Amino acid sequence: MTNSENTPNVISLTNTTTPALLLDRDRLEANAQRLARRVGMLGGVLRPHVKTHKCVDIARVVQSAGHTRGITVSTLREAEHFFDNGFGDIFYAVGISPNKFDQARRLIAKGCVLSVTLDSPEMAQQLATYGTNAGITFPTIIELDTDGHRSGVDPEGDALLEIGRLLHELDGVELRGVMTHAGESYHCDSAEALLAMARLERDRTVAAAKRLREASLPCPIVSIGSTPTAFAIDDLGGVTEVRAGVYAIFDLVMANIGVCTPDDIAFSVLVTVTGHQRSKNWIITDGGWMALSRDRGTASQRVDYGYGAVMDVRGNRLPLLMTGANQEHGIISPATADERIDYSAYPLGSQLRVLPNHACATAAQYDTMTVIEQGTPTGVWKKISGW
Amino acid sequence: MTNSENTPNVISLTNTTTPALLLDRDRLEANAQRLARRVGMLGGVLRPHVKTHKCVDIARVVQSAGHTRGITVSTLREAEHFFDNGFGDIFYAVGISPNKFDQARRLIAKGCVLSVTLDSPEMAQQLATYGTNAGITFPTIIELDTDGHRSGVDPEGDALLEIGRLLHELDGVELRGVMTHAGESYHCDSAEALLAMARLERDRTVAAAKRLREASLPCPIVSIGSTPTAFAIDDLGGVTEVRAGVYAIFDLVMANIGVCTPDDIAFSVLVTVTGHQRSKNWIITDGGWMALSRDRGTASQRVDYGYGAVMDVRGNRLPLLMTGANQEHGIISPATADERIDYSAYPLGSQLRVLPNHACATAAQYDTMTVIEQGTPTGVWKKISGW
Repeated sequence: MTNSENTPNVISLTNTTTPALLLDRDRLEANAQRLARRVGMLGGVLRPHVKTHKCVDIARVVQSAGHTRGITVSTLREAEHFFDNGFGDIFYAVGISPNKFDQARRLIAKGCVLSVTLDSPEMAQQLATYGTNAGITFPTIIELDTDGHRSGVDPEGDALLEIGRLLHELDGVELRGVMTHAGESYHCDSAEALLAMARLERDRTVAAAKRLREASLPCPIVSIGSTPTAFAIDDLGGVTEVRAGVYAIFDLVMANIGVCTPDDIAFSVLVTVTGHQRSKNWIITDGGWMALSRDRGTASQRVDYGYGAVMDVRGNRLPLLMTGANQEHGIISPATADERIDYSAYPLGSQLRVLPNHACATAAQYDTMTVIEQGTPTGVWKKISGW
Repeated sequence: MTNSENTPNVISLTNTTTPALLLDRDRLEANAQRLARRVGMLGGVLRPHVKTHKCVDIARVVQSAGHTRGITVSTLREAEHFFDNGFGDIFYAVGISPNKFDQARRLIAKGCVLSVTLDSPEMAQQLATYGTNAGITFPTIIELDTDGHRSGVDPEGDALLEIGRLLHELDGVELRGVMTHAGESYHCDSAEALLAMARLERDRTVAAAKRLREASLPCPIVSIGSTPTAFAIDDLGGVTEVRAGVYAIFDLVMANIGVCTPDDIAFSVLVTVTGHQRSKNWIITDGGWMALSRDRGTASQRVDYGYGAVMDVRGNRLPLLMTGANQEHGIISPATADERIDYSAYPLGSQLRVLPNHACATAAQYDTMTVIEQGTPTGVWKKISGW
């Protein structure tokens, strides 16, 4: 953002160093409100995930849409940053390990209401021992594996009750509930499949909570989550919170799943046309894979958008795709193979915007974003990265 | 690096916040020396590319291997950072565009010997007009397309001479030579194919220089580049510099191409075992795609390493691959499908190291790296990112 730093009162896209991450605030607000309304209608509460954007200003917009309680984070670095910026109720939804106990302890000691998660009796015992020695109690949620895609215990297995008893009985830890993430929903692309996946996620999580309670163990929190299932679920009975994150931004993977359209996507990457390879029917830009990330998530989906779908600088879709990427070179081609590019429409030095396959991966390449409201750049928001 | 910051005198891998980027300095030095020796033997000079690591300390190690002149950068942010740290001779090897003219001008005005590149008469004219108005002369190198993979002009076409004449005759610009990048060499995997590609790159670039000189245009610089072709080329006659970057680090893509072995790779990602999914024969770690990048460059190569090949914490290869990734979860499986994981060898909380598919993409996820010498962590080096 070198140029805008030099001329702080004149933020315009022409002055923006490219490639640059743009945030369409109007789309962000509409997206945040859409899921908040839906979850609110079902009598539920959202615990928005900040891992997509890692930006305090975005989290505040999401919060102001209502029907939220606290936030979810994917790293303790996020927890520290958001706690320092006024977010006091945080769930660290990635399984903790001993080398992170101290970082979590320090946050709790500073007053953060931080819950952690784990999925084994061994980790429960280690955390309890550490907590006891440190004179602190870790609120802990048991991770469930409801769809076989990652970590978590079988909601119907013995380990759930074993971990529950340890967390309830040992000093240094406190059993707070169960959580799952329906990652397999990313492979759905019909309303029926999404609804089935959402009900599976809910039913298995609620059933796990019931098993704990039947064993006289407390289970105040029943936490489910994923953007696709959050839109699909039709009844939140038994669920105390819904974790979702990318819904505030959206991306082309989500458009292919069917929970948004490309015109809802709030992040785009501003690039500059640097070359015309007329013999190949290509436009070359200064936005390569460093600017968009290496994510090719749409490659295995209904519509393969290459490295991204192309818009003009005002945000209107163009019949172009970013079909190739070197580190700092983007290759843009017609979306339809037999079209020829009208190069007069895209002169050297002109700007384009590229919608990302995967908002989380693209945002990870940036420390700041330029905010656009009603088509006009209005400021620069910071985000964090790292661990 | 939260923990090591708190205990600056006790840098150990156990204290390192994971995931973390590790740099094996012994491997870095051996790699840097290997290509320097080879290019030196051919009477050539390297202009090392810093885009892989963006780290001044690494660039100094590479420089100390000898047979180098200046550096190559992929962004003007890199140019600024390396110039501020004592690197005065820099080639910005990505086609410049008008919104970057001012950033380049400021570097030249500060005393940086900065060359830029372009591949169209229009951009040559715009740069000349800007340079004339600013009272500065931009040393400019014409980009050639020798293998059809990206930007650049046809070495045998009319545009080469047209651009050459403009750069030579107009004020504000100075014709310095020709350059190409043999990106197609990344698709080779035999010594014969690499040698053929390297000779094609050299021959077409040297021929373009000859065409300029025959038209009474100066062409002091004849610059070729790519790690695979730099190792393959057998004669550098007519070439004034070789640009290569990833050779100092290497990665699994380069191992598949055949220019290194996995045991030469100087970057790895330190991760912690956070879970045992025994029923799936998986180890779960805290290093997901955010830690390794989304690069799946080996997917289309001879050996598909998934998201990376796994080593123990001392750097010995294990029969394990990182086969899956969520944002902050890595999934590790046996490299051979019918093997069962011996979980007692990888207890919860223990550390592993993952070799990256693509060093440039993985390093982009980090601001620092922990340096290891003779197996012992000896310090933390900074790197930059962004534009």
